[in-house]
Amino acid sequence: MAMRKVILGLGVSLDMYIARPDGAVDFLFLPNDYLMTEFFAGVDTAAFGRKTLDAALKMSNGASFGDSIAMYVFSRTRPAGKRGEFTFVDQSPETFVKRLRKKPGKNIWLMGGGELTREFLQADLVDELHLGLIPVLLGEGIPLFPSGFPQRDFTLIENKSYSLGLVVLKYERTRPVPKSKRVRQQRAPS
Amino acid sequence: MAMRKVILGLGVSLDMYIARPDGAVDFLFLPNDYLMTEFFAGVDTAAFGRKTLDAALKMSNGASFGDSIAMYVFSRTRPAGKRGEFTFVDQSPETFVKRLRKKPGKNIWLMGGGELTREFLQADLVDELHLGLIPVLLGEGIPLFPSGFPQRDFTLIENKSYSLGLVVLKYERTRPVPKSKRVRQQRAPS
Repeated sequence: MAMRKVILGLGVSLDMYIARPDGAVDFLFLPNDYLMTEFFAGVDTAAFGRKTLDAALKMSNGASFGDSIAMYVFSRTRPAGKRGEFTFVDQSPETFVKRLRKKPGKNIWLMGGGELTREFLQADLVDELHLGLIPVLLGEGIPLFPSGFPQRDFTLIENKSYSLGLVVLKYERTRPVPKSKRVRQQRAPS
Repeated sequence: MAMRKVILGLGVSLDMYIARPDGAVDFLFLPNDYLMTEFFAGVDTAAFGRKTLDAALKMSNGASFGDSIAMYVFSRTRPAGKRGEFTFVDQSPETFVKRLRKKPGKNIWLMGGGELTREFLQADLVDELHLGLIPVLLGEGIPLFPSGFPQRDFTLIENKSYSLGLVVLKYERTRPVPKSKRVRQQRAPS
C-alpha cells in the first residue's frame, strides 16, 4: 500500500499570496476546464491552521466538503477534540502525520495557511506541491511560503495551462536517499 | 513601430526568491533545451538596481553581455553617468522609460532586484513577466516581488516545461482601457 502523502495544494497569486491582507480570496477562480474532482478523489483528509479556518468561515457562506473529507484544525489556543465537522489538533505536524499514516487512507491535503505550512516544511513533511497560479500580482497579502525553513528540492511532475490563464504545477519532494538505503542499494548487485 | 516593452525576466525559486540572503544564485540553472538567445535577440537594454550590480559583480568572474546590450544601473548614492560598461541613472523609472521610448530600439530587460522591481510596478511600467521557475523552495532569500505596490493583472501568453523541471511562464500586462479610448471605441459603429 502506498504511503499517504501530504499534498500542499492551493491557488496563489504570482507573488505567492494565498489571500489579501484581510483574508479575502476574491482573486481566485476555477476555470471550467479545471476539475477539482480528480484532486478530491485522491484525498480524504484536510489539515489547516486555525487562522485559515476563521478566514474561511468569515468568507464562505457555510460551504463544506461534506462527509468525504476529515477536517483537522491546528490550534495552540483552542482545546483539542472534535467539534462539529472539525477536529482540533494540538499535536506537532510530525506526530499528526505519523499517527494518520498508521491507518490506511488516502492522501492528506495541507491547505495552509503560511504558519502551518512553514511548520510542515520545517519538519520536511510536504511530499507534493500543487500550485494553481493565478495571473495576477497582488502586491501585498498573506504569503504561502513565509520564510524560515530549510531548502527543499522538488521534481516537476505536471505542468498544465487552463483557460483564463490558470497554470497548475505539480511537484514531488526530492529527498536525499538515506545513508542506510544507499549502502543497501550499492550492495545489491554483489 | 511597436512600443519598446519593459520585460521583467528572471529565474526564481518557487517561493519567489531571486537570490539567497547573501546574494548567491547557485540554485539557478539553464537546461540545454532552454535557449536564452531568443530572449536576448529581443532586448537591447538592461536595467537593474545598484545592489543587484554589486551582487552580480561579487558572484561573477567578470562576465558581461558584451556590446549588444546597454546596461543601466539605478542608484541613489552614486553619481549619474557612464562608467565602464555601465550607465548610472538617478532618474525615476518613469522618466527613464519615457526617455528610452522616444528613441527606436528593442525591448528593455528589467533584471531586478526587488526594490527596483517594486518601483517599476508602482509606476505600472512592467509590460511582460518572464519567470523561470526553479523546482526548489529556498526558505529564505531576496524576494522578486517585495510587497508594496497596487494589484497588477496579467494574461498568460506562454507556458513551457524544460528539462530538469524548469518551467518558463510568460505573462503580458492587462491594462484597463483608458476612458478616452473606450468612448471612441463605443462611438465607432455609429
